[in-house]
Amino acid sequence: MPVREKKLIQRIRRAAAGVRSGVVKGIGDDCAVLRVPSGHEVLVTTDFSIETVHFRREWHSPELVGWRCLTRGLSDIAAMGGEPLAAFLSLAVAGDVPQKWVDRFLKGLLELAEEFGISLAGGDTAQSAGGIQADIVVVGSVPKGTAVLRSGAKVGDAIYVTGELGGAAAELGLLRKSKRVGNLRQPLPRNLRRDSGYSRPHARIEVGRWLRERGVASAMIDLSDGLSTDLGHICEESRVGAEIDAAAIPLAWVGGAAVGLELALHGGDDYELLFTSAAEVPAEIAGVRVTFIGRVGRFAGMRLVGADGKARRLKAGGWEHFRGDL
Amino acid sequence: MPVREKKLIQRIRRAAAGVRSGVVKGIGDDCAVLRVPSGHEVLVTTDFSIETVHFRREWHSPELVGWRCLTRGLSDIAAMGGEPLAAFLSLAVAGDVPQKWVDRFLKGLLELAEEFGISLAGGDTAQSAGGIQADIVVVGSVPKGTAVLRSGAKVGDAIYVTGELGGAAAELGLLRKSKRVGNLRQPLPRNLRRDSGYSRPHARIEVGRWLRERGVASAMIDLSDGLSTDLGHICEESRVGAEIDAAAIPLAWVGGAAVGLELALHGGDDYELLFTSAAEVPAEIAGVRVTFIGRVGRFAGMRLVGADGKARRLKAGGWEHFRGDL
Repeated sequence: MPVREKKLIQRIRRAAAGVRSGVVKGIGDDCAVLRVPSGHEVLVTTDFSIETVHFRREWHSPELVGWRCLTRGLSDIAAMGGEPLAAFLSLAVAGDVPQKWVDRFLKGLLELAEEFGISLAGGDTAQSAGGIQADIVVVGSVPKGTAVLRSGAKVGDAIYVTGELGGAAAELGLLRKSKRVGNLRQPLPRNLRRDSGYSRPHARIEVGRWLRERGVASAMIDLSDGLSTDLGHICEESRVGAEIDAAAIPLAWVGGAAVGLELALHGGDDYELLFTSAAEVPAEIAGVRVTFIGRVGRFAGMRLVGADGKARRLKAGGWEHFRGDL
Repeated sequence: MPVREKKLIQRIRRAAAGVRSGVVKGIGDDCAVLRVPSGHEVLVTTDFSIETVHFRREWHSPELVGWRCLTRGLSDIAAMGGEPLAAFLSLAVAGDVPQKWVDRFLKGLLELAEEFGISLAGGDTAQSAGGIQADIVVVGSVPKGTAVLRSGAKVGDAIYVTGELGGAAAELGLLRKSKRVGNLRQPLPRNLRRDSGYSRPHARIEVGRWLRERGVASAMIDLSDGLSTDLGHICEESRVGAEIDAAAIPLAWVGGAAVGLELALHGGDDYELLFTSAAEVPAEIAGVRVTFIGRVGRFAGMRLVGADGKARRLKAGGWEHFRGDL
């Protein structure tokens, strides 16, 4: 049973203490008051993390759930080329969730906030009707008119992706297959620690900033739903087509082997950046590998060029809610 | 069963169409991009509305749930003396919630957004593990340094409240007592329509603005948890005490009678403004009644002066989550 709401807010307030520049008033009033750099526009993103949908208590450590919760928001800021300013957490927890779980969740979230130099500046707490629901809001900023949208891809632009893809989905697959012991915990495959690399992604804030500062990316999105789905969003918003080369897609390594192409194409939660560009792009930006994977075209939809050199139609196959296959 | 996520987002996007000034980019990118008036600071508030905790489908119409959901956020902006700019909705819905419910919920929410001239500029949708969870984020602004905080109350300041108190709690009480027919619906008492006055509150944006523009309020909070709890927040943040006069508290009328003092003191969801002031305050601001109810003092805690003229200790008795008495 969690401590009472007031105590929970006090705990969060203490844990989040140390107000940073930009936060005029943090937790403890009706609203937070933020100061945005002069000449900047404000970025806002919200992302739900829901137990049994986005995470499972028997699979993911509380710290990791907190870390990933904030990563989802930071990654959206990165995809606009933005600077994160402050985070807000709305947290609903059922009466049977141990306070220890909430404390460890906050620890993971605040560790990441610290790393990016942002404050947890507010939010809401409530008793849930069952399980845990966390909604993270991240507010950031960009110099006026410089936010990198999904809608700017032009015919002929090259398509790039950061890092490697499919790792988070592959690790989730291993977790699914791992045997259940007792009621709650599962032993993990030898090669997989619970909080291993791909499950603990890093939002690509620095890469996004680099691209925005130089005006290099014509369109950008973060890979949260999967390459095929997220590339589809760029095509739709930019009203263009895209052709990508299967052999070029950078595959993550999990458990000593490269992940399958399907996972790299359709697996979600990679939190890498996908962007288009007409400019020259280095093979590494801010220490992160950048790979050319295809080109924007005048045709409709997406194509995948296979090992045989033939282009086949690529359909969005990433994560989608409400498919009824939960 | 709701339509698929993409369709749901499209529906919301269509329903929310008509981007207003200040929203550079609304729904359809990784983040919304907002333009804040020059010389203004940014206000951010988030509020959960959770089925069975904040509303019940058999008690509240979907439109009303949507209306109240947004009111919670707007009311926080009002309490800072702010101007609302845009709203963001994170909505998690279980597979068995009819799409019709979601459509009507959005209708109520967007009707209110329209009334205040703000856009629904983004959010998130997800399948919930059960029931409905909505997190509303409202972003607003105030001229730099003018936000009315909870922490500014000074010894000797008068305490004021807008409107009448206890109405929402009284109506909820009638709903609780009303008989259940079949599995879902309950006939309502004659004097009470489901979407009647107090259940359909109006955020006091205009009153908040009036007070902020004239620098009249030294501290302010909105009455969401109940007068005793919210006055307690002002006392705590301002490090002062407060004495209020029971006879002065403006009681709501429900079902042909004034509500009981207990409901006016401790009932939540009134969404009126509570503020302190050293200046002269008119009896009506922007068409809303304003009542003097007591004074800020140097002592610790809160006191209530009864009909006998004696002051008794007043304890915060408003809504608090995690009390275990859900």
